[in-house]
Amino acid sequence: MITYDEAYNKVMSQTLEFGTESVALLQGIGRILADEVRADRDFPPFDRATKDGIAIQYATIEKGIESFKIEGVISAGMPQRKLSDTHNCMEIMTGAVVPENADTVIMYEHLNIKDGYATLNTSVVKGQDIHYKGSDVISGSVLLKKNKLIGAAEIGVLAAVGKSGFLVKKLPKVCVISTGNELVEVSEQPLPHQIRKSNVLSLYAALQKENIEPKLIHLRDDRESIKKELIHILKTYDVVLLSGGVSRGKFDFIPEVMETLEVKKVFHRVAQRPGKPFWFGAQESYKTVVFSFPGNPVSTYANYHIYFLPWLRKSLGHGSIEKHVLIEKAISNTTSLTRFVQVKTQNKKGVIWAMEVRENGSGDLTSLANSDGFICLRPREKAYKKGESVPFISTNPQA
Amino acid sequence: MITYDEAYNKVMSQTLEFGTESVALLQGIGRILADEVRADRDFPPFDRATKDGIAIQYATIEKGIESFKIEGVISAGMPQRKLSDTHNCMEIMTGAVVPENADTVIMYEHLNIKDGYATLNTSVVKGQDIHYKGSDVISGSVLLKKNKLIGAAEIGVLAAVGKSGFLVKKLPKVCVISTGNELVEVSEQPLPHQIRKSNVLSLYAALQKENIEPKLIHLRDDRESIKKELIHILKTYDVVLLSGGVSRGKFDFIPEVMETLEVKKVFHRVAQRPGKPFWFGAQESYKTVVFSFPGNPVSTYANYHIYFLPWLRKSLGHGSIEKHVLIEKAISNTTSLTRFVQVKTQNKKGVIWAMEVRENGSGDLTSLANSDGFICLRPREKAYKKGESVPFISTNPQA
Repeated sequence: MITYDEAYNKVMSQTLEFGTESVALLQGIGRILADEVRADRDFPPFDRATKDGIAIQYATIEKGIESFKIEGVISAGMPQRKLSDTHNCMEIMTGAVVPENADTVIMYEHLNIKDGYATLNTSVVKGQDIHYKGSDVISGSVLLKKNKLIGAAEIGVLAAVGKSGFLVKKLPKVCVISTGNELVEVSEQPLPHQIRKSNVLSLYAALQKENIEPKLIHLRDDRESIKKELIHILKTYDVVLLSGGVSRGKFDFIPEVMETLEVKKVFHRVAQRPGKPFWFGAQESYKTVVFSFPGNPVSTYANYHIYFLPWLRKSLGHGSIEKHVLIEKAISNTTSLTRFVQVKTQNKKGVIWAMEVRENGSGDLTSLANSDGFICLRPREKAYKKGESVPFISTNPQA
Repeated sequence: MITYDEAYNKVMSQTLEFGTESVALLQGIGRILADEVRADRDFPPFDRATKDGIAIQYATIEKGIESFKIEGVISAGMPQRKLSDTHNCMEIMTGAVVPENADTVIMYEHLNIKDGYATLNTSVVKGQDIHYKGSDVISGSVLLKKNKLIGAAEIGVLAAVGKSGFLVKKLPKVCVISTGNELVEVSEQPLPHQIRKSNVLSLYAALQKENIEPKLIHLRDDRESIKKELIHILKTYDVVLLSGGVSRGKFDFIPEVMETLEVKKVFHRVAQRPGKPFWFGAQESYKTVVFSFPGNPVSTYANYHIYFLPWLRKSLGHGSIEKHVLIEKAISNTTSLTRFVQVKTQNKKGVIWAMEVRENGSGDLTSLANSDGFICLRPREKAYKKGESVPFISTNPQA
């Protein structure tokens, strides 16, 4: 049995690369950028009016002139015009190109317009209300760095520079395996000794949030069929997530079959609760890693978030953000195991407080739905006291 | 011009209901539950062994017997067996039904097994290592409340109670409209006076995160075609999000066309920066609301998160969570406008600190991609000092 820190480091040292692929602009949200993105032109690409009003040459005001003959109207989307007489003005709309010979925009609110003339009713600053060419970004500048997570703002940037498609990190092919002859499909009516699959569906949904659509496979407790299926699975998928099947029972054939298929056991059993009987291995010639989680819902869910998600993010080059929370009520961990305790969090004036969620053993279905994540309590003699900050593994990004 | 608080309250008083619909279990992640979910049976549904080992009757130990003849082996998925002689035991695997006449499970680690007999090598507590029928949840209990956001844990609960489909709130039909003759498609090479659409694509991506696939429509600055299109749009969609088109220019026909189509203006212009020229209205007979955001990226993005998302969540019955952050560096707002300042946040020992992101005017493309959200600074004489907590509008759920 190894410690949580050892287990975490061993998992993180087994990251894989899945290559890159091109996606259409609107298919890219939530993906990780595989290339930097540069400006293909200056932004703004021209001196752009930021108000509706008139464009003038400031020098004309300096000559004492306050009334300007209107030469024409420029709206957004028109090619650049030219002020033919610098004593005149042109009406100009937000987003339009400032005409040649003009250098200042004055909004309608500061003008009186009558008989084809615009007259100032307030003072003017040279160059005002123009968003100058290249003032945000000059052509060739890096706008988005490689390995950035694509959100809505990034989609806007990609659109602005003309990327109707772009290169992202490929996601792993993931196979989620349920085991155990007691399991029946969700749509079935279980007999009294049977239960419906739920862990693997929870994993499926969690993977969907990472834009991964895994393959779901059920293995019955039968050595030969497990072996036949696993050969194919190890060859086909980058990641295998198992729920159940690695305890010490007479019908848990998976560890021994893994061995015959040259899946190297990296470790089995971690000094943690829940999630102790976690088995992690790698098949090096197929470049496949195997996360074999204990069969109960809380253990599977905890280990998915504690180990798999950081492993995935590191593999994609994105990394994880470390979070901490303050504990609301003293709690101790004098065991020899690292404890992961379900909590509900609350942001009070910028401080994140964590309240323990009462949990009814590691088979408890509903506690996970009431939690925002797990706090990590390492073994120690002294109790963790109210207000102490502890590491937090979030399972609810909205909280 | 109205204040931010007035504008917010007016928007939130115009929520709509979109009805409910049934979705398949694995299509439901990210949706809002429209019905409560109850346990269809006890959980666990039977007295379940939580260890691999043997099942015995504790009274036998009390009689001084420490060695048990093994009657058979019970694995998970087998119907309940019966211990024929209470002096005997049965081997039992994790997940299996505890046999009749047995009340205690002893794991292999605490046993010596030889010649068909299991002998204790440590003391035993009556009832140990059994997860009792109904100890998590009894049949009929409410497991998930109405209006809950469906995450991975909730999918597990729904699976366990046999919901291969379930009822969720319908999402609104949303139309996102770009305006302005200067805009060209992302795939086009813009002329020097043109720019590519980006705001509406950013909105599209943001809506995708809410599981909404909006319709994108571009309206050219032409009164008749705008009117024709808008009639159809107002009849068809629940929500119209516009970017641009509501300033005071000669070519901004949208406000006047809205009026002729009986879209009641709720307000226009809010005492805030960015996002001041925000126009909000409702067409009551079609039950359509119109969010018309200013045309620049930061304003559109800010107002989407400040107004639209809370409106959407309230409409779906889910509500929003108020967040606060602490400011890293003193900042003042002595203007008469509520300021929304872009920040990057960092969790330091459970406290969320916000650092201002340098922004180059409201047209700045890249600042949004570097921000985690906006802090809200109301007008006041005294500066906001370092460490003061202020409301925070998150745009990056991972931060």
